[in-house]
Amino acid sequence: MARAQRKTHNRVEKKLVGVADVVITAAQRRQDPTLSIPVRSLSNITFNEHKGLIEMGKGKQARSFFNVGMAKKFMQTILVADALCELQRADLTTSLREIYYRTKHTIANSNENTFDAQDESDPVIEDLEVSLEALREELHVRAENGGSVIGPLVLVDDGDRVDCARLGKGGYSVPSIVEPEFLQIKKCTADFVLLVEKGTQWNRLSEDKFWRRYNCILLTGNGQPPRGVRRLARRLHEEKELPVYVLVDNDPWGYYIYSVIKQGSINLAFESQRMAIPKAKFIGLSSADPEHYGLPRNVGIKLNDKDTTRARELLNYRWFQSKGWQQEIKRMLSSGLKYELDALANKDFQYLTKKYLPRKLKEKDWLD
Amino acid sequence: MARAQRKTHNRVEKKLVGVADVVITAAQRRQDPTLSIPVRSLSNITFNEHKGLIEMGKGKQARSFFNVGMAKKFMQTILVADALCELQRADLTTSLREIYYRTKHTIANSNENTFDAQDESDPVIEDLEVSLEALREELHVRAENGGSVIGPLVLVDDGDRVDCARLGKGGYSVPSIVEPEFLQIKKCTADFVLLVEKGTQWNRLSEDKFWRRYNCILLTGNGQPPRGVRRLARRLHEEKELPVYVLVDNDPWGYYIYSVIKQGSINLAFESQRMAIPKAKFIGLSSADPEHYGLPRNVGIKLNDKDTTRARELLNYRWFQSKGWQQEIKRMLSSGLKYELDALANKDFQYLTKKYLPRKLKEKDWLD
Repeated sequence: MARAQRKTHNRVEKKLVGVADVVITAAQRRQDPTLSIPVRSLSNITFNEHKGLIEMGKGKQARSFFNVGMAKKFMQTILVADALCELQRADLTTSLREIYYRTKHTIANSNENTFDAQDESDPVIEDLEVSLEALREELHVRAENGGSVIGPLVLVDDGDRVDCARLGKGGYSVPSIVEPEFLQIKKCTADFVLLVEKGTQWNRLSEDKFWRRYNCILLTGNGQPPRGVRRLARRLHEEKELPVYVLVDNDPWGYYIYSVIKQGSINLAFESQRMAIPKAKFIGLSSADPEHYGLPRNVGIKLNDKDTTRARELLNYRWFQSKGWQQEIKRMLSSGLKYELDALANKDFQYLTKKYLPRKLKEKDWLD
Repeated sequence: MARAQRKTHNRVEKKLVGVADVVITAAQRRQDPTLSIPVRSLSNITFNEHKGLIEMGKGKQARSFFNVGMAKKFMQTILVADALCELQRADLTTSLREIYYRTKHTIANSNENTFDAQDESDPVIEDLEVSLEALREELHVRAENGGSVIGPLVLVDDGDRVDCARLGKGGYSVPSIVEPEFLQIKKCTADFVLLVEKGTQWNRLSEDKFWRRYNCILLTGNGQPPRGVRRLARRLHEEKELPVYVLVDNDPWGYYIYSVIKQGSINLAFESQRMAIPKAKFIGLSSADPEHYGLPRNVGIKLNDKDTTRARELLNYRWFQSKGWQQEIKRMLSSGLKYELDALANKDFQYLTKKYLPRKLKEKDWLD
């Protein structure tokens, strides 16, 4: 085990053991064991204008064992903390679902299960994340797989030196956990990171060796980027000071994907501090692009009711209040059309690589 | 361009040009241009007991230009063939969606589009696949991304030597197209391939270096395996003579995933000959496993109506008629429970790696 890894383990393990200590101390003092857990509801979330981050407030609530309404949840919290501690000690990672199965059992002499479904254990894990101020990844909990990276970047994964410039067109499968204790950034000579929403366009850019010509790192999560991809982009931004450009479909969901990468998500506000990239730029598709790049209207798709409602919601979000963003969203609404990145192929199969992105980068045509 | 690649191009390009030749020849002879296209409906599909494959029959249908009902589809076929030819000549790959966009335009002096939605262009691509006897991949059409491979396997991708035993825990992102012209298998010293349905269990096995201990290649497609993953398994089976074991959830969908890997799918019967692995083995989860491995009933999930209906359908499929498979499916139905691979974590986070699979392999406990 690497030294950095052992250190993190000790720190996280100590915190988890601290949860058990609460119970022991209370028992010794014949008191009600009580945990103090930060409130994760919307009421406790703010947008920090200065930092450009969605943040959690300081609201906390008590979770006690001697309280009929809380006893089960208290027990569940202790069970999950125990399973997480097992992961630390054995130096293993696992998934949310496996933690549910691991901690599920029927309580002796009863028909009562500790957990009946995963939607009972997931929130408990989130409670522990915020309470202990440890990212899910530091608790050794994996999310789904599903991203690729290619470019002038050398990583060290489990002692193996992975040169992402020497992996053909396929690239390196971004692991779910990319914390420094698991993955080290050995070398990076790129000028920027391009985070592409869809795998198709990532493939186009990879095939055309765009990363070599523009000296960048190509990342994709094949849709809404999974945590590992977001966290890797953040680390490259933070540790290597690389600007991050985000390329998404021109629809309200593309805008939202961008905003999650930039400010963090409302659901997981407590993670923004370690996951969000407030300086990330939206490079496209912009609702101004069809005109600038001569995309015909017949490759646009009519906005449906859901799109329109969602776009109007976005118009009200605090982080979309700049003049540029209001214009961007309103322009989409007034055109009545959305455009997929794939539509660029209407011009030419390599339009993205050879015309669209080069001009975007040259004209510094992006939104903040 | 590698020699093998150029050769395939010539062959496929020639076939595509042949489609245009049909039109030219007919025009010169003042005849109705007509393409002969194999029928892709259920009526033209059989299960070849001997080969263990779902196959297409010899039924064909004519598609003529001078026929009001067929003229549009004929025109679409020619447009798509032209776009596919462009891909061959420029040595590019692309997606189904981008082909739709590339071939979409409004016909001059009309309000008529060549294509109104992708569900018009996709079947045309399939028509050309069967007519020209060229896999989608040979036509340079990519499917979605989304698989990983790790183990004693050296690949050559775009001239880069990719050693899948030196990629940490993350492994190599399996490209969508793994045809020999794009990806070469340079070296493979593994004894077998383990194709795992879910990314979570693949991660478990990768983290535990199961592949090193059991000298195997670990493959996953994160769910229903995408074409690239299936095709890579098939190539390893065929070219390196490796047995392929499939590990899926114990539910009707897991059985079906296995059967698609083994016999091919009904929808894409014409591809079975190049995609299916008739000798693939089902290693688990079996409906017998909960008893054999002491999984408690409370980690089973009650079969719902859809599960039951689907399982009864599978019981009637020609390729599930063996005694072993009838028992397997009936046992699930009579228990009324399905089990996810994740449920093995109930015993121990490493139960899959350290107990379940070792015993399965030792006892040769699999189904054909």
